[in-house]
Parts: sequence; structure tokens; C-alpha cells
Amino acid sequence: MRTIAYLGPEHTNTHLAALKRFGRGSRYVHAPTVDSVFTLVERDKADYGVVPIENSLEGAVTHTLDRFIDFRGSPVCIVGEIEFPIRHYFITRPGVKPPTVQAVYSHPQALAQCQQWIDEHLSKQRWLIETNSTAEAVEDVVRHDSRSAAWHSKRVAAIGSREAARKHGLAVLPITEDRENKTRFLIIGKHSPAKAARNKTSILLALKDAPGALHDALVPFKRERINLTKIESRPSKKKAWEYYFFIDVEGHVEEPRVKRALMALARSTSLLRVLGSYPTAR
Amino acid sequence: MRTIAYLGPEHTNTHLAALKRFGRGSRYVHAPTVDSVFTLVERDKADYGVVPIENSLEGAVTHTLDRFIDFRGSPVCIVGEIEFPIRHYFITRPGVKPPTVQAVYSHPQALAQCQQWIDEHLSKQRWLIETNSTAEAVEDVVRHDSRSAAWHSKRVAAIGSREAARKHGLAVLPITEDRENKTRFLIIGKHSPAKAARNKTSILLALKDAPGALHDALVPFKRERINLTKIESRPSKKKAWEYYFFIDVEGHVEEPRVKRALMALARSTSLLRVLGSYPTAR
Repeated sequence: MRTIAYLGPEHTNTHLAALKRFGRGSRYVHAPTVDSVFTLVERDKADYGVVPIENSLEGAVTHTLDRFIDFRGSPVCIVGEIEFPIRHYFITRPGVKPPTVQAVYSHPQALAQCQQWIDEHLSKQRWLIETNSTAEAVEDVVRHDSRSAAWHSKRVAAIGSREAARKHGLAVLPITEDRENKTRFLIIGKHSPAKAARNKTSILLALKDAPGALHDALVPFKRERINLTKIESRPSKKKAWEYYFFIDVEGHVEEPRVKRALMALARSTSLLRVLGSYPTAR
Repeated sequence: MRTIAYLGPEHTNTHLAALKRFGRGSRYVHAPTVDSVFTLVERDKADYGVVPIENSLEGAVTHTLDRFIDFRGSPVCIVGEIEFPIRHYFITRPGVKPPTVQAVYSHPQALAQCQQWIDEHLSKQRWLIETNSTAEAVEDVVRHDSRSAAWHSKRVAAIGSREAARKHGLAVLPITEDRENKTRFLIIGKHSPAKAARNKTSILLALKDAPGALHDALVPFKRERINLTKIESRPSKKKAWEYYFFIDVEGHVEEPRVKRALMALARSTSLLRVLGSYPTAR
């Protein structure tokens, strides 16, 4: 039986995405941080890990990108991706109306995605309180009464999944957005998957400090007619305004054209690591 | 006398950066959000606005990038930049020790920048509470006793500037980081500044949906030997996995080589807006 580590606790969007992909026939282990999901896979405590990488409204999940930078020698590679529609719910004890709420608990990404709704429906005096996950936020609403010094239980809410609210018998109000809200999750593991019909390859690179370095890095892909689906830059954290780049391209590292492009790329970059080749979600 | 709008309240890092650039001889107006700083300049209530755009540890300030995307018809342009070293302080009532603190108030960027320090010095049970600014966080520590339902005043702290702590007579503990922590701020206005010795041009663009589109967009800069100093992608928020790009290049839009590159760029992009040409901070 496969063991799947995911960014927990239970009933987070990462959990729902992992369940969708790996089904009920797997063993699930939740980990409190992105870093600990990686660690479980690195130490063979889990076969696969599931972590968020990007949201269609808020952009990159920088924790996950930075984990690839900070542990460049990790044996972990990307073995797949999951696209999952996000539905946020405003969760309170039954009978609580949004305007009376004074404190909203949720994950910083969920708070950011719902900022517009929060501004329209809640008092300007509300507090936004960061939690490690949306599920933890829901638990905070439940545990509320027992904490010595905190807000009145009718004045707190969480933003999280319907599943988490249901588990605790809380009331839900769907947070409607006219914009497309999807999250892309990465599946990490230690063994590259077999080539599928449509594949994607993720690369981490650092450019040489020379004019035109980014252009030069893209030339091999252009020459081999390899489409770039994504580019993301992150600070190196060593020197201000020095960056690493995450690039996703179509194709598998076993394809000759991708191999040739990477060989050429290695000459124009100061660091190059293939994070994985895996089946495209779409 | 010039009026400068900045992301407030007083004693934020944005305020300190604005004071450094415009000095004591200007009138300062603080605004509660990035959006409202833009609005004050757009409505001629301020000559200049100062907003954060990028931190050397945490990366892009996505609110500011998204304001340029959401109001593409705005008359506001970038007229300058300020680089400012960031020193965070752990701020409490006198005599409070970090391990007893249960709730830390600060701006989400400051909380993220100090994550490592927080993990090392505070209890695992601590709450991180988002505020609109570091200065507001400090005010929260001061006002604490008068709020009906919240934590005990010895159990709260803020992360903010020494200036904000001093104003309220609070104790400070420097949050030391061995990494370079700098923020880059943009100065926005309505009139392009004169060409300086060294200039930078910021561009917002959307690529055509075609293979090699990003490569093609960079070709004109390579051909004209114009160095790219920065590329940042942001979700379009209209369609999942569709992006806008922010590109900074060396040179001024009045230089023939930059003009030629932009003319060529216009042919390979579906949207192109020059956000401004301005003197380089370094």
C-alpha cells in the first residue's frame, strides 16, 4: 500500500487534491509544513508527497519554490501534478452573520484569495489571523471557547473547505468569486514516472551575470521548438536582486530534443537542475 | 511644496524610505493600502506616491504588481525607485521575553521575512496576526489593554520599525538575519522624469499564445544589447495559467535603441505598456 504525505491537517485543499489523485486505497499521512512533506519523502516515510505550487489568482506558492532552492541536493523529484478547483467557505458557529465577525482565521493564501469578499462582507475592524492551513483555521473556531483569552465565539470565523466544516458541525457560506480559482499541486517522489502521452519538465536554473543571459537560456528551447508553459523568478536570498528561475517546458527529459536543449542550456547557466519530467495534468 | 503619498501609517518602512528620498521639506500623506496610494496620485491629491515593489528575501509585492494590471488605463507612471535596507524589531511592552509571547502582529511580508527567527525564538503555539502595516501592528500592542477580548498584554508582540516602537515607549529587540534584507520601493507620479546618467525602463506585457512567445519577446532586447534586470510573472486572474509579465530593462525610453526594441516588442505581444523610465537607484 502506497503512503501519501500531504500538507495537512485533514480536509485541507491539499488533502482533497491528494484523495482525488490517489483514491481511498492509499495510506495518508499529513504533515504540518511544506518542508516536512519533503522530509517525509526524503526519509522514505512516504512514497509520494503532495504540496501546492501555484494558484490561478494569487500566483506562486513561494514556500514550495524556495524548498527546491534551499535543498538543491535533495533526492526528491517532481513526479506529477494535480489541478484542483478551489471553493472557499466562510465557516462559523450556526447563526453567526458575517458583519458581526471580528476575527477570521485562515491560511494566508486563502485570506488573499478571498480579500475582495472579506472587504465587501465584513466589518473594516476585522482581524485576519494566519494559520498553517485552512483546516487548522476551522479547528480554531471549534476550540475557541476553551481558550482562555480570545474573541467571543460568535465573533470568529474561518475560511476553509466544506468538508472541514461538516466534520465539526459548523455552518458554511460559500465565498463566491467570478474569477477562476484553481490550485496546481505537485506530486513529489524519488522515482521518475514512465513517459506519458503528454509530459512536462520542470527546471531550476541560475543565470550567469551577463547581458542577455535570460534570452540566451531560452534559445535552446526555441531552436528545438519546445514550448515554455511557465517561468517564475525567486530571490536567491544570498545577494539582493539575484534570482533563481523555475521554468516548465513541454516534453520529457528522455526525448532527444529536450535532452539537446538541456545540454545547450547547461552551457549558458551557472546552475541547472531538472526537477522532474511528469505527465501533464491537462 | 510637494505632497508625497505613501503606504502608511507613519513609521512604516515605506514612510522611512519616502523620508529618505524626499526629505523634511515635503508634505506627507499616508494611505492605508497600495491601491489608495495610486488613487491619491491619480486624483491629483498627491504629486508622488511611494509603494513597495520587491523584497530581497520574500520577492515581489504582488499587490503592487496587480494594481498595474487591474488599472491598465491609469495615468500613473513609475518615476523613480528607492532601495532601502530593512531592519525588523521584535516589539513588546518593557520586560516581556519572546518565549512568553502568544500572538505576534505584523504585516504579512514582515511575518514571512522573520519566519526563521520566529520559529527559533517563540513558542510553537504562537499566533501570527496579519495587519495592514508594521506600524499598525505596533499600535495594536499599545492599544491592547483597552480591547475587550484579546490576549494578555504581556503575551503580545509586534514586528515593526524602531521608530514606531520609540514613539510609543515600547521595548525593542533587533531581529538579526544573516541574509541581506532590502526592499525596493517605486515612486509613482504623472510626469516622466528627465533622463539621468543611468536609467531603467519598466514594461508590462502579455504574450501571444504561441510557442516560443517569451523567447521572441526577449529577442529585440538582445539584438539592441539592452540588459534585462528583472522579470516577474503574475496570473492574469481572467483565465487560469495565463500570465502577465513585468520586465525591467536598462536604458531610457527616449534612447533610440530602447525605442527600436519596444517597437519590435509590440509586434510579438498582445499587450504592451511602458510603466515608466526613471533613474536607477544603484
